[in-house]
Amino acid sequence: MSVSIAFIGLGVMGYPMAGHLRTAGHKVTVYNRTAAKAEQWVAQYDGHSGPTPAAAASGAQLVMLCVGNDDDVRAVVFGESGVLHTMTPGSLLIDHTTASADLARELATACAAKGIAFLDAPVSGGQAGAEKGALTIMLGGEAADFARAEPVLKHYAKSARLLGPAGSGQLAKMVNQICIAGVVQGLAEALHFADCAGLDAKAVLDVISKGAAQSWQMENRGYTMVDGQFDFGFAVDWMRKDLNITLNEARRNGAQLPVTALVDQFYSEVQALGGKRQDTSSLIRRLKRPNRG
Amino acid sequence: MSVSIAFIGLGVMGYPMAGHLRTAGHKVTVYNRTAAKAEQWVAQYDGHSGPTPAAAASGAQLVMLCVGNDDDVRAVVFGESGVLHTMTPGSLLIDHTTASADLARELATACAAKGIAFLDAPVSGGQAGAEKGALTIMLGGEAADFARAEPVLKHYAKSARLLGPAGSGQLAKMVNQICIAGVVQGLAEALHFADCAGLDAKAVLDVISKGAAQSWQMENRGYTMVDGQFDFGFAVDWMRKDLNITLNEARRNGAQLPVTALVDQFYSEVQALGGKRQDTSSLIRRLKRPNRG
Amino acid sequence: MSVSIAFIGLGVMGYPMAGHLRTAGHKVTVYNRTAAKAEQWVAQYDGHSGPTPAAAASGAQLVMLCVGNDDDVRAVVFGESGVLHTMTPGSLLIDHTTASADLARELATACAAKGIAFLDAPVSGGQAGAEKGALTIMLGGEAADFARAEPVLKHYAKSARLLGPAGSGQLAKMVNQICIAGVVQGLAEALHFADCAGLDAKAVLDVISKGAAQSWQMENRGYTMVDGQFDFGFAVDWMRKDLNITLNEARRNGAQLPVTALVDQFYSEVQALGGKRQDTSSLIRRLKRPNRG
Amino acid sequence: MSVSIAFIGLGVMGYPMAGHLRTAGHKVTVYNRTAAKAEQWVAQYDGHSGPTPAAAASGAQLVMLCVGNDDDVRAVVFGESGVLHTMTPGSLLIDHTTASADLARELATACAAKGIAFLDAPVSGGQAGAEKGALTIMLGGEAADFARAEPVLKHYAKSARLLGPAGSGQLAKMVNQICIAGVVQGLAEALHFADCAGLDAKAVLDVISKGAAQSWQMENRGYTMVDGQFDFGFAVDWMRKDLNITLNEARRNGAQLPVTALVDQFYSEVQALGGKRQDTSSLIRRLKRPNRG
Ligand SMILES: NC(=O)C1=CN([C@@H]2O[C@H](COP(=O)(O)OP(=O)(O)OC[C@H]3O[C@@H](n4cnc5c(N)ncnc54)[C@H](OP(=O)(O)O)[C@@H]3O)[C@@H](O)[C@H]2O)C=CC1
Ligand SMILES: NC(=O)C1=CN([C@@H]2O[C@H](COP(=O)(O)OP(=O)(O)OC[C@H]3O[C@@H](n4cnc5c(N)ncnc54)[C@H](OP(=O)(O)O)[C@@H]3O)[C@@H](O)[C@H]2O)C=CC1
Ligand SMILES: NC(=O)C1=CN([C@@H]2O[C@H](COP(=O)(O)OP(=O)(O)OC[C@H]3O[C@@H](n4cnc5c(N)ncnc54)[C@H](OP(=O)(O)O)[C@@H]3O)[C@@H](O)[C@H]2O)C=CC1
Repeated sequence: MSVSIAFIGLGVMGYPMAGHLRTAGHKVTVYNRTAAKAEQWVAQYDGHSGPTPAAAASGAQLVMLCVGNDDDVRAVVFGESGVLHTMTPGSLLIDHTTASADLARELATACAAKGIAFLDAPVSGGQAGAEKGALTIMLGGEAADFARAEPVLKHYAKSARLLGPAGSGQLAKMVNQICIAGVVQGLAEALHFADCAGLDAKAVLDVISKGAAQSWQMENRGYTMVDGQFDFGFAVDWMRKDLNITLNEARRNGAQLPVTALVDQFYSEVQALGGKRQDTSSLIRRLKRPNRG
Repeated sequence: MSVSIAFIGLGVMGYPMAGHLRTAGHKVTVYNRTAAKAEQWVAQYDGHSGPTPAAAASGAQLVMLCVGNDDDVRAVVFGESGVLHTMTPGSLLIDHTTASADLARELATACAAKGIAFLDAPVSGGQAGAEKGALTIMLGGEAADFARAEPVLKHYAKSARLLGPAGSGQLAKMVNQICIAGVVQGLAEALHFADCAGLDAKAVLDVISKGAAQSWQMENRGYTMVDGQFDFGFAVDWMRKDLNITLNEARRNGAQLPVTALVDQFYSEVQALGGKRQDTSSLIRRLKRPNRG
Repeated sequence: MSVSIAFIGLGVMGYPMAGHLRTAGHKVTVYNRTAAKAEQWVAQYDGHSGPTPAAAASGAQLVMLCVGNDDDVRAVVFGESGVLHTMTPGSLLIDHTTASADLARELATACAAKGIAFLDAPVSGGQAGAEKGALTIMLGGEAADFARAEPVLKHYAKSARLLGPAGSGQLAKMVNQICIAGVVQGLAEALHFADCAGLDAKAVLDVISKGAAQSWQMENRGYTMVDGQFDFGFAVDWMRKDLNITLNEARRNGAQLPVTALVDQFYSEVQALGGKRQDTSSLIRRLKRPNRG
Repeated sequence: MSVSIAFIGLGVMGYPMAGHLRTAGHKVTVYNRTAAKAEQWVAQYDGHSGPTPAAAASGAQLVMLCVGNDDDVRAVVFGESGVLHTMTPGSLLIDHTTASADLARELATACAAKGIAFLDAPVSGGQAGAEKGALTIMLGGEAADFARAEPVLKHYAKSARLLGPAGSGQLAKMVNQICIAGVVQGLAEALHFADCAGLDAKAVLDVISKGAAQSWQMENRGYTMVDGQFDFGFAVDWMRKDLNITLNEARRNGAQLPVTALVDQFYSEVQALGGKRQDTSSLIRRLKRPNRG
């Protein structure tokens, strides 16, 4: 069954996600702040675009967002030409942006006041996952709304799960990022040590990736870290945004995150080294091999 | 072809390892400091035992060690009744103990002086890996000696790889432990955060273990950490021994290991909490959920 | 020369500060959210009070604030009955609250639009310093405005210095708090180590406080930390507020603050232990002495 | 009353210390591994020197050591021509080297077996303190031996205190170094932040050094850190030696030293940057100011 969908935000992630929906036969109207990208998308996928978020969302049963941060979401939802101006009772707003749980709750409340359903739905899987339609989606909201969304989400997700009330998707994404911070720092120190020890780091990775030290990062970023390649998508600047959200949430819920906080500071050093746009595995760059006499 | 083997140290790891060799038809003579364990092993596997390391190693083509730490290895090798007193030119000494790279080099030199070959060969895979004969072995030494050892090692290893000259096996094991320190701390902080955030941590693990946050530790220890179960083998005391060796090696080779050093201190706190014998996933125990009014 | 002053916020700090101004003979009108405290102050110092910040500030040449955090300052300045409604061109607003540098710049701009001068002026010295009139004040703003304020500030400050344009006072206070985080954590680890080592910690403090390890914290909080006394004013909750402001500013200016970020997380643990209202030296509480067999 | 003293080790510290003893009128025989320095000392102070530690110690009532580390002390005490070969019952050995508490206990035992008294006596105060005769000495041993030593120690100490049985001096020195690690890192982060924030760091130091953030390091190293001057004596290599001793002791006594361990790793980075011989305030060198677009 074809659904009328608005998709706001055609970045690295949103562009292919919206494409999958259109390819699956849905009626998709997009909006992108930089209009050229919307035009390109319309041409590529034979879809429609609107001049503002509100225009794109007009008449949509489903409105999806995938923009930058809390402020960006606020702009396209509550702003002068935000989607809330045209969304109608019974429609559903899904936010794929990685943002704060507070924002999710605020959106849920604002939507509820207008009879609109809301799901926070941050994703993981990166650019490759978005393009292959193989994202993982962590959701917060009501079960009935999730049931409604699920068939549509499946066009770009290999896994989508409701984890609790509004905000739970964002909180789960934070759990994800905390894990990554520890894994990547451990891996960076390990490869730096291997280098200082004069080992063939790739041979060591071959061996240890079969055991208790194994991780997705080790298998997918370990070898490229050894080669000094850091152009695999999820940027340090995004990671710091996510860690900031996470550390602020911890401030509220009382969690202690010593290594997460430390790695966040180490990423600051990577930014100072000019690595803002490099992917998160560039964390290893700040570990300098000693000068050898 | 049956080989004449001595196996020194029938602990959690050595006992089943020696058993696999015997089951495969080799002539195995064991030694264990606590004699009762040697007797039990002899009865179970129909093998032999010697009253001292030297006696057990007498006439052996291959001598394997799997004891506790550097000092223990020194005792069974160089001690009054150590294996070096009876090992003969052309035989091969393999040390499965996780020990320092310095010790490995010292053993290689001492062996070479007597025409004995040496391989340092720490393992990973834990008690389960030892029992199933599915260990991973990281080796340091000469290629020819490795070639000689490989068919025998395969009785308890799913993977065995030579990584460089003497000491390289130990150095690779250190790389492994550094990775684990980061992974486990990240996972512990993540699950602690999930708890403080009121999430269903296991549901979150189901979702995120499909993506970039995945790790062997997440899949195999994440759920049990949520349940507060910490009896899965590799003990905190062993981990601190290994991290101590690692940090000392870093002191020599100039590597910077900030999070490894920090996690080592956090394990000190777990020891203070009484967790010395609990497995490494007990790292989460020091993260206390705040009192809620 | 007597000046007409409004003082907003009669907390631990503001109450005695306003008192010193009155004692010095100025015309002081106070405002406090909880009216009882204002009444008590009026009775004790023979001053006046206003029912709202705006009322208290009406006709004042100088308006001082000493409330809690950014939001509190916004409430008493920009709120419905905030001081900006009644302050007149040529008057001077001085904010003694420890708040963000962003807020200071925002206040400076808003004041300038109305012809009002502004100085951000966070203090250090604690309750004792406020009571004794021996605070240290770090100021941001224009030199001419500072010159105007200085004679009045001297009633409760032993030192007041202009450090640059609006916001500079707050930034200097952040520098102060970063130093304290490192000092107190080092001191806490040292005293914990002394305890574990079986030393007479106070005797050691006597000796080392004469040399390169000396600090104000060592001399003034070291002995009481040994005794487990943590009721010396500046609370953990305030410290975390200040560190949060600091870490957010670092996020903007690119500074790397690894230990500050870590100590902030350790304070989270102290909060979880119930130490929110204890002073910052309670950081030692999270260091647990190991169980001795 | 003139005492017959041997002084072993005429380094940065030992040279002036031995000089003070001679200037005070004692009979001093020195030994230094590099003979030229001993000759220079003899010429400057009109003293004597011996060709070996044993020779220098022959006939001495008091033997002082101030060499590098544990191994060095072992060499000059237990070595082939170590002082124990010639020291006689009733004489007193004082070790001013910063070394492990284990070594102190080992020395105490070895001395006791020969009827020789022992005090471990590490110092603080640096080169300047040694030259001015204003060191602080932390001692471990017996009260009667301390009483005997005190009048002599006073020639180069402004303060000397017995802190417990053998080893206590070394343990107290560790407490000192832990404090310094925290203080210097806090100060380094603070000055780095000030730089990133565009503040006049020296003006800020002027202000905050009057309050709760004050430390000896701030007053004596803060300004020179701003200027990038790091040639004030106590070298990073020495500091890492001391922190290594400290962290090893903590491993035994169960103390948790997270920031100490972290700062030790940061010093490793300073060493990699080439700062091994710079003083401990060079810790700030690893904090890089971000590139400004
Ligand atoms: N357990 C695990 O999951 C893993 C362990 N390892 C490493 O393998 C090694 C062995 O571990 P594990 O088997 O668990 O340890 P155990 O404590 O179970 O066994 C240690 C063995 O060494 C013997 N031993 C210790 N010290 C001496 C000594 N001075 N002289 C003679 N024999 C001695 C013990 O004898 P006795 O029976 O008399 O005490 C025992 O047989 C360690 O280095 C460990 O770090 C590596 C990977 C995983
Ligand atoms: N205490 C200390 O040692 C030091 C404190 N500081 C800083 O000084 C400031 C004040 O600290 P302190 O005096 O200890 O704090 P207190 O909590 O004792 O007092 C806070 C004051 O602010 C008032 N207030 C808070 N929020 C509002 C609001 N929204 N509207 C109106 N009034 C409000 C309170 O009113 P009410 O009485 O109604 O609650 C009270 O008068 C803080 O920024 C703190 O970080 C700086 C150095 C040392
Ligand atoms: N420098 C400082 O600011 C402070 C230093 N300390 C501690 O004091 C001790 C001495 O420091 P410092 O004087 O600066 O060091 P130096 O490096 O200047 O001097 C070391 C001295 O020890 C001798 N020495 C070293 N190894 C041996 C050995 N194996 N056999 C014989 N002699 C040996 C050296 O002889 P040679 O001349 O032949 O090299 C030299 O005389 C150290 O433990 C240090 O940690 C404590 C507080 C402050």
